[in-house]
Amino acid sequence: MTLHTGRHFLQIPGPSTVPDRVLRAMDMPVLDHRGPEFQALGREVLAGCRAVFKTSGPVIIYPASGTGAWEAAIVNTLTPGDAVLMVETGHFATLWKAMAERLGIEVEFFATDWRRGVDAAEVEARLAEDKQHRFKAVMVVHNETSTGVTSDIAAVRRAIDRASHPALLMVDTISSLGSIDYRHEEWGVDVTVSGSQKGLMLPPGLSFNAISGKALAASKANRMPRSYWRWEEMLAPNAQGFFPYTPATTLLYGLRESLKMLQEEGLDQVFARHRRHGEATRRAVRAWGLEVLAVNAAEQSPVLTGVLMPDGHDADKLREVILDKLDMSLGQGLGKLKGRIFRIGHLGHFNDLMLAGTLAGVEMGLALGHVPHQSGGVATALNYLKETLVDG
Amino acid sequence: MTLHTGRHFLQIPGPSTVPDRVLRAMDMPVLDHRGPEFQALGREVLAGCRAVFKTSGPVIIYPASGTGAWEAAIVNTLTPGDAVLMVETGHFATLWKAMAERLGIEVEFFATDWRRGVDAAEVEARLAEDKQHRFKAVMVVHNETSTGVTSDIAAVRRAIDRASHPALLMVDTISSLGSIDYRHEEWGVDVTVSGSQKGLMLPPGLSFNAISGKALAASKANRMPRSYWRWEEMLAPNAQGFFPYTPATTLLYGLRESLKMLQEEGLDQVFARHRRHGEATRRAVRAWGLEVLAVNAAEQSPVLTGVLMPDGHDADKLREVILDKLDMSLGQGLGKLKGRIFRIGHLGHFNDLMLAGTLAGVEMGLALGHVPHQSGGVATALNYLKETLVDG
Amino acid sequence: MTLHTGRHFLQIPGPSTVPDRVLRAMDMPVLDHRGPEFQALGREVLAGCRAVFKTSGPVIIYPASGTGAWEAAIVNTLTPGDAVLMVETGHFATLWKAMAERLGIEVEFFATDWRRGVDAAEVEARLAEDKQHRFKAVMVVHNETSTGVTSDIAAVRRAIDRASHPALLMVDTISSLGSIDYRHEEWGVDVTVSGSQKGLMLPPGLSFNAISGKALAASKANRMPRSYWRWEEMLAPNAQGFFPYTPATTLLYGLRESLKMLQEEGLDQVFARHRRHGEATRRAVRAWGLEVLAVNAAEQSPVLTGVLMPDGHDADKLREVILDKLDMSLGQGLGKLKGRIFRIGHLGHFNDLMLAGTLAGVEMGLALGHVPHQSGGVATALNYLKETLVDG
Amino acid sequence: MTLHTGRHFLQIPGPSTVPDRVLRAMDMPVLDHRGPEFQALGREVLAGCRAVFKTSGPVIIYPASGTGAWEAAIVNTLTPGDAVLMVETGHFATLWKAMAERLGIEVEFFATDWRRGVDAAEVEARLAEDKQHRFKAVMVVHNETSTGVTSDIAAVRRAIDRASHPALLMVDTISSLGSIDYRHEEWGVDVTVSGSQKGLMLPPGLSFNAISGKALAASKANRMPRSYWRWEEMLAPNAQGFFPYTPATTLLYGLRESLKMLQEEGLDQVFARHRRHGEATRRAVRAWGLEVLAVNAAEQSPVLTGVLMPDGHDADKLREVILDKLDMSLGQGLGKLKGRIFRIGHLGHFNDLMLAGTLAGVEMGLALGHVPHQSGGVATALNYLKETLVDG
Repeated sequence: MTLHTGRHFLQIPGPSTVPDRVLRAMDMPVLDHRGPEFQALGREVLAGCRAVFKTSGPVIIYPASGTGAWEAAIVNTLTPGDAVLMVETGHFATLWKAMAERLGIEVEFFATDWRRGVDAAEVEARLAEDKQHRFKAVMVVHNETSTGVTSDIAAVRRAIDRASHPALLMVDTISSLGSIDYRHEEWGVDVTVSGSQKGLMLPPGLSFNAISGKALAASKANRMPRSYWRWEEMLAPNAQGFFPYTPATTLLYGLRESLKMLQEEGLDQVFARHRRHGEATRRAVRAWGLEVLAVNAAEQSPVLTGVLMPDGHDADKLREVILDKLDMSLGQGLGKLKGRIFRIGHLGHFNDLMLAGTLAGVEMGLALGHVPHQSGGVATALNYLKETLVDG
Repeated sequence: MTLHTGRHFLQIPGPSTVPDRVLRAMDMPVLDHRGPEFQALGREVLAGCRAVFKTSGPVIIYPASGTGAWEAAIVNTLTPGDAVLMVETGHFATLWKAMAERLGIEVEFFATDWRRGVDAAEVEARLAEDKQHRFKAVMVVHNETSTGVTSDIAAVRRAIDRASHPALLMVDTISSLGSIDYRHEEWGVDVTVSGSQKGLMLPPGLSFNAISGKALAASKANRMPRSYWRWEEMLAPNAQGFFPYTPATTLLYGLRESLKMLQEEGLDQVFARHRRHGEATRRAVRAWGLEVLAVNAAEQSPVLTGVLMPDGHDADKLREVILDKLDMSLGQGLGKLKGRIFRIGHLGHFNDLMLAGTLAGVEMGLALGHVPHQSGGVATALNYLKETLVDG
Repeated sequence: MTLHTGRHFLQIPGPSTVPDRVLRAMDMPVLDHRGPEFQALGREVLAGCRAVFKTSGPVIIYPASGTGAWEAAIVNTLTPGDAVLMVETGHFATLWKAMAERLGIEVEFFATDWRRGVDAAEVEARLAEDKQHRFKAVMVVHNETSTGVTSDIAAVRRAIDRASHPALLMVDTISSLGSIDYRHEEWGVDVTVSGSQKGLMLPPGLSFNAISGKALAASKANRMPRSYWRWEEMLAPNAQGFFPYTPATTLLYGLRESLKMLQEEGLDQVFARHRRHGEATRRAVRAWGLEVLAVNAAEQSPVLTGVLMPDGHDADKLREVILDKLDMSLGQGLGKLKGRIFRIGHLGHFNDLMLAGTLAGVEMGLALGHVPHQSGGVATALNYLKETLVDG
Repeated sequence: MTLHTGRHFLQIPGPSTVPDRVLRAMDMPVLDHRGPEFQALGREVLAGCRAVFKTSGPVIIYPASGTGAWEAAIVNTLTPGDAVLMVETGHFATLWKAMAERLGIEVEFFATDWRRGVDAAEVEARLAEDKQHRFKAVMVVHNETSTGVTSDIAAVRRAIDRASHPALLMVDTISSLGSIDYRHEEWGVDVTVSGSQKGLMLPPGLSFNAISGKALAASKANRMPRSYWRWEEMLAPNAQGFFPYTPATTLLYGLRESLKMLQEEGLDQVFARHRRHGEATRRAVRAWGLEVLAVNAAEQSPVLTGVLMPDGHDADKLREVILDKLDMSLGQGLGKLKGRIFRIGHLGHFNDLMLAGTLAGVEMGLALGHVPHQSGGVATALNYLKETLVDG
C-alpha cells in the first residue's frame, strides 16, 4: 500500500466525513447518565431529532447501527407470520427483507432492475387487491444507498390512502435524513428508520425510529418477543431526558453538535446543497461517457451517484487503484452490482472544492485504471458549479 | 446548580473515566469500514478481545449497550418457553430476568437479600433435581453493579458439572471484565456478556458476547427469531476483520487503544490494583462507622462499594449534596435499594490520589449532608494505601 | 519508573492543568491569520485580556514564554546604562534581575531571606533619596512562584507616589494573573508582565505586557535595539484584531476559551477559591508539623505553598518518591532553595477533591520518603474545606 | 459572509494544514517541564530537528514565531554598527532587513524585481571587493514566501568561499524546511532560521536556529544585549533535554509527531511530492493564460506559486470572492505586490486531490471574479498529475 499524506477523501456514501466540531464535541469526558447534566443533554437531542425528522411525535434513539433500527421497526410492530409489502430497490432493501424473513415475517417483494425507485402505482394496485388487509406494512427505502435511487415517499403514502389500506408505512431514511427533504409527519409515515453516520455527520453507532401514533398503538398490541428495541421502555424515561439503559453518551454529545450545525445552515439550504452536488456529479459522469445507474431524473440521488462501468471493466479494480494512488475511498457495488458499479458519495459535511477533488480523483483514476472514458468530467462539473453559485 | 471548576469526579460504577489516550484515539476521522485499513483494525481488536476474555474462541462485538449483549446471549441460545435458572443478586440480575421473560423465557429466580452472591450449592442442588434437563441455562452476574457483590463463577461451573447438567452457563461481566480476574475458557463459561464503559475504559456503545463451542452449537439449532444479534452473521465477516453491518468505527479505535493500555499495565496488575482500591475503600467505610452492603469478605467487589445509609437518612440527598458542592457523581441505590445505599466506583482508569479525592468527597459530603458518621475514613484508607505501596 | 494509571496530578505551580474545554478549543484547524475569521478572534482575545488585567489600555500578546514578556518590558522602556530598583523576593526575581543585567541595565537589588515580599517602606526610602531620579523603574514580582510569597503591589505604588518619584512600576504577574486579585490600572502599574500557563489555564507559549500611557511614552523615546518585542509594531495591527507577525493561532483559540471560563466563574469567585485552597493547604502543612516558607500571613500565596523540609531531608528525594509511587509532580526548590523546599501548586483549573488528592499524595509521600511528620494534614485541610463550603 | 460547510481549504503558503495526528498529539495534558517524561520528549525532538535540518550541530527551539528566530540569528552574532549583505528577494527579505536595521545593523541590500532569487555572482563580486571584511554576514531567504521564488543556497556558499570572505551565511528557511531540499551542514550555513507552521505541519508558535561552530564562536564574542534569544543559555540545558525557561510543551508534543510523519514518508519523497505539486500548479496557471511571478524555472518554488493578475484586476478582490463563495484562503500579495498577485500554497500535509480542489477553486474563482482567463487549468494539472503518478 502506498504511503499517503494529506487528507483522505472518504467518498463512500456514508459513513461520511465527521466535522471537526462534532469530533471535538465527542472528545470529552463521559458523564453520569443518571444526573442532571445528562438530562439536559437528553432533552436537547430528543427535541432536536424531532425537528430533523419533521415530526411532533417521539423519536427513539438507539445505541446501535442503522441495522438495529430496522430490526426495531419490525419487532415493535409485526409478529411472526405477518405479511408485508416491500420493494426491491437494491441491496439494502434486500437486506431489510432478509432480516424481516429471519424475524418470521412473510415478505412480498416487488422486483426492480435496481435502477429505479418504488412504483407507487404498483403498490396501490396490490394493496387495492388485498381486501383482507393481510399486509400489515409497506416497507420501503427512501434513498437506496446501494444504487443512488431515491423514491417518492409522499407518493407511496397517497397510494396507500387511495387503496384505503390500513398497512403501516415504514421508511428507511438511513442515507437520506439530513440530506434529502424528508417529512415524517406530513407524509404520514408510521415508522422512519435512520442512522447517525450519513446526513447527521456522526460516526456510526446511533440509530433512530420516529414513530406515529398508529405505530405506537400497533406496538402495544404486538406479541413479538423483544426487549432492547421495545419502544415502550424508551418512552417513559425519554420524557424526562433519560434512557432505560446506558446510552452512548459521547455519540449524543456529537449529535447535539451536528443538530446545531444543521440548524445553523438551515435544512432547506442543506437539501439544496446536496441536490446541486448530485447534479454536478451526474454531469461529470455523463461527460466521461459513463452511465448513471439511476435512470429516472426525478429519482437520481442528491446523496450519492452509482456509476456503471463499461463492459469488461471491474469497478473494484478501479476503486483499488484510486485508493492506492489517490487516497480516496469510493463505494463498491453491492450484491448483484458487485464489480459493475462504483458509488460516489457527495453527502454530509461537504462543499464544492471537496467535490472537485473527488471528481478529479475519479477522472484520474479512470485513466490510471485504463477504463475507457472521455476526459472533461471535472471541467463540466466545475462549469455547472460555477454557474449555480448564488450571488450573495 | 453550583458552577464547578476543575475536573469532575465521575465515581459512579461505570461509565468510568475514559483515559485521554482513548478519547484522542477516537477523535479521528471515520474510515471506510469495507477497506483494508479497517480490516487491520478489525483483526486487531477481535484478537485483543480474546485475550481480555481469556478465550481462544470467538468474541462478538456489537454496536450496542451492554443490555444489547444480554439480549444477544438469550436470543441466540434460547427459545420462548425455555426455562433458565437465575440468581437475584441485585438490580441488574433482576433486569436481566425481566428481559428474559419479555423474550418468552421462563425464569426460576433464586432470591438473595442483595448482599451476597450466587450460592453455588443451591444451584447444584436445583440442577441435580432437574433430571429432565428442563433448565437450558444458568445465568448469573459476575459483579453486581447495583450492590458491589462479586460471585464465584468457577464455583458455579463446578456446581453444574457436579450435577452433570447440560445447561449453558451465561455470565454477565459488564462491570468486571478488565477489572476483576475472569477466565471465560478456563471456567467453562458458554456465553460471557460484557460492555465497553467499565473496565475497558471506553464510552458506552459497544458490547460483547464471548461464546463457547457449545453455545455456538446451541445457537445453530435455536429457533428464536433474531437478526441483529445473530452470531452466525457475525462470525464469517469477523474472520476477515469485517462486520456484517456498519460497526461503531470510532469506538473500535478507542477499543484498540484501551486494549493496548490493559496489556501495557498487565491484567494481573490491573486486577491487583482494583482489589487494593476496594479494600482501601471498605476500610474508609468502616472507619466512618458505616456498613458495606456486601456481607461476605470474599464477595466484596474490587470495582465498586455499596454503602448502607444510617436509618432515616436518604442516600440520594447525600449524593445530591456531593454533586452540588463537590462536583462528584456517586452511584445511586437501584431498585429496592433506592435511597438506602450509595455506590462508590473505584474502577478503570484510576489511581491512589483519585481514590483519595473520592473518599475525601464522601467524607466531606457526609458532614455537609448531616449524616451521622465518624471522621477518619480518609485517614484510614490512606494508611492502608501507604502500607501496601510496593517498593520498586 | 513505575507504570501509572489514572490521571497524573500536575501540582507544580504552573504550568497548571489545562481544562478539557481549552485543550479541545485548541485542537482545531489553523486558520488564515490575515483573514476575517481570525480578525474576530483577535479582537475578542485582546478585549478579554484587558478585562483580566483590569485595564482600559493596551495588552500585548506575544507568541513567547513568560520570560519573553520580561524581556519585552525591559527592552521597550529601558536603555543600557539605566538603573532600576528590584527586590530579591526569590528565584524568579533573581532571574529577572540577571536578564536586566544581560540587557545592560544596572540593578539595585534589595535582599530578602526569600520568605517575605517587597518591603514598600524600603522602596519608598530609597526612592526618596534618589533626587536625580536615576532609577528609571521599580521592578517587582507579584507572586514569587519560587517561594509562594505574594507582594502588595498597591503598597509599592503608594511608596513610589509618596516619594514623588517618576520611576515606572513594572510587575511580574506570571503566576498570579487570573488567580490572585490584580488591578493594572487602579494600582497604577506601568508594565504588567504575564504568561499563559498558570491562572489562564493554557499551555505555555503566550505571554503578555499590559502597558500604561506612561510606559508607552517611554517606549517611544527609548533607544534600546529591539524588534520582536517592539510595542509600537504591535499596536497598529492589534487595533484591527491582527498581529505584525504570525501569531500562535491555536493558543489564541485556547485563550478565547479560558477567558470565557474565567468570566463564567467570575474573577472574584476565582480569587476566593484560590485563597481558600491556599489556606487549606497551609493548615495541612502545619498539621504535618512542617513549616510554610512564607512567614507573613498576608503574603502567603493563594497559588502555591512552599514547604520547608526538616533539616537533613532532601526535598527532591521526596518529590521523586511522590512522582514514582503516586504519579504526582510537585515543584522543586529553585536556586538557593534547591532540596530545601518543595512547592505545592493549587491554582488554575482546580477544586476541593483535586486538592484532597494532592494533599493525600504529600502526606503519603512524607511517610514513604521517611520524612519526619505528623499525620493528620489531610484531615485538617478537609475540616477547613468542609467548614467553608458556602451554603447555596 | 456566506455560511460554509465542509472543510476549509487553507491554501495560504503557511500556516499549512495541521494533520489530525499532530493536532491530537498536542491535545494532551501538559506535563512538568522539569521532570523525566519531559526530558525524554526534549531529547527526542532536539535529535529529530537535527535530522530535518541535516546538521550534526545544535538546533535551538524557541517558543516564538519565525520572526523571533530571525531576531535570534541577528542578536547572537551581530552587534550594532555591523554591516551585512542582504538580497531583496521579496517582502520577507525586506522585513528581515528592517528588523536588522532596527537592531542597529547596517544593511547593504541588493535589489531584485521580486521575481528572481539571489544572484550568487553578485554576492561574490561584492564580497571580493570587501577586503576589510566589513560584512559580518550574508543573510538570504531560501524560499521567499511572498513571491514563490527559491534561491540556490549552495551557490551562495560557493560565492562566499570563492571570495574567501569570512562572513557568516545566515539563511531563512521558514517556508522551505521540510518541504524543499535543504542541507545546513553540507552547504556550510552558519545560522538557519526556521518556523513550525509550514513544512513542519504544526501551528505557529515554535521557531528554530540551527547553528554552526563558527556562528557559536561568534556569539560568544558578541556584545549585543540579549537574553531570551541567547544561544548559550539554551545549549547547556538542551544537552539534558531541558530548556532554560518554560517551553511550549504542547507544541513540542506536536513537533515529535510531525517529525515522525516526515521520517515515515522520507524526506526525499516529501521533497519530490512538493516539486510535483509545484509543477502541476504552474501548468494550471499557464493554461489559464496567467503568469507565474517567478521567472526562472530553476527558482520556481515547490511550496507556493505567486500568480500575477491581469492588469486592471485586483488580486484581493479575487481572493475575497474565493473565500466567500468557495471557502478557500489564498495568500495575498504583500508589500509592493499588494493586489497584484495572489499566492497558492501547496505545501505540507497535502496530496493530489487537495491540489485538484485547490486549483478548481482558483479556476472557478477567476470566472466568478470576472478575471480574464482561459479555462482548462485544472484539466492541464490533472493530466500532469496523472502522467507522473509512479506505478508501484
